[in-house]
Amino acid sequence: MENLIKDMDFIVEMDKMKSVLRMTRLIGEEEREDDAQHSWHISIMAMILKEYSDRDIDELKVIKMLLIHDIVEIYAGDTFAYDKEAYKDKREREEKSADEIFAMLSNGKEREMRELWEEFEEVKSKEALFATAMDRLQPILSNYYNGGGTWKTHDVGISSIYKRVEPIEDISEKLWKFTCDLLEKACKEGKIRDDR
Amino acid sequence: MENLIKDMDFIVEMDKMKSVLRMTRLIGEEEREDDAQHSWHISIMAMILKEYSDRDIDELKVIKMLLIHDIVEIYAGDTFAYDKEAYKDKREREEKSADEIFAMLSNGKEREMRELWEEFEEVKSKEALFATAMDRLQPILSNYYNGGGTWKTHDVGISSIYKRVEPIEDISEKLWKFTCDLLEKACKEGKIRDDR
Repeated sequence: MENLIKDMDFIVEMDKMKSVLRMTRLIGEEEREDDAQHSWHISIMAMILKEYSDRDIDELKVIKMLLIHDIVEIYAGDTFAYDKEAYKDKREREEKSADEIFAMLSNGKEREMRELWEEFEEVKSKEALFATAMDRLQPILSNYYNGGGTWKTHDVGISSIYKRVEPIEDISEKLWKFTCDLLEKACKEGKIRDDR
Repeated sequence: MENLIKDMDFIVEMDKMKSVLRMTRLIGEEEREDDAQHSWHISIMAMILKEYSDRDIDELKVIKMLLIHDIVEIYAGDTFAYDKEAYKDKREREEKSADEIFAMLSNGKEREMRELWEEFEEVKSKEALFATAMDRLQPILSNYYNGGGTWKTHDVGISSIYKRVEPIEDISEKLWKFTCDLLEKACKEGKIRDDR
């Protein structure tokens, strides 16, 4: 029972993910999205969109990565994708948080979860690429349907956005085409500043 | 691309899950939990707790069930677990919503998702039992750490709670022991009314 109680403490701690706010707002709402909502959304996206991957992917691994990819933000906070200053110590803050969070788990689970998170962060394996594609695609949809969302409030140019979504191109031709079409449409509609 | 655009419309529609409120509150917070947060939490719980299942379970199937189990509530609304009146037409409302939601998906995905949801609702297969155990366990934790939470605000007696958590007993001896210990402790601490 000792291990189970340890795991339950971890599970209770996870409730804090519901209060880590991202910059993105819910579609058509004033509320900002939180990490739990975001992680759920991209996990269900992986289920629906896996068929568009150019390479065979281990679906369970992708979903597990997506479920846990942001839990280090419980202590490290969310870092806005286009905040260059905050990105400087992002890795350091998150590594420290990872040490703390994963150590709460019993048995071999600490290592399993840590490895999944590291693999996601490296964005090298095909599963990490597909997971990252989901993570990058979801805020694009939110911003588009929010009349520009954080692209407008933070004056993000289309060049930075294209750089941010590059991993999508590496894993899915179809999702890449969809993304480019949507970004160009957003640009034409004045939802993104064209800095090319 | 036609199928992909259909799937993306479904994904955008899923954003509404973040605004379907449950009765339970976030631990230590005033905000009520929403369906997206809840679904994320129980999916990560399945990852952590699967080792305590008495039977071998297909982890991917369990997680997929948990990710989608509440999406019918986008149109049908959340039904409070101890609201007998609202439970009378719950099935009918949710079936109608399911017809509408799953039809948004392309290809064979409509059928796959519908079957997963039906299997979850029937609570017969070992995966559905384990998924249901997660779904019942999570609000127990929230209520316990919220000084009684909805048990107190809705004056729920311990007999109804034991009835509600029965599926846990059918799939995991260890999780059942944990649950009973927690409920008895909550009762002693005055967080649950003892109606036995």
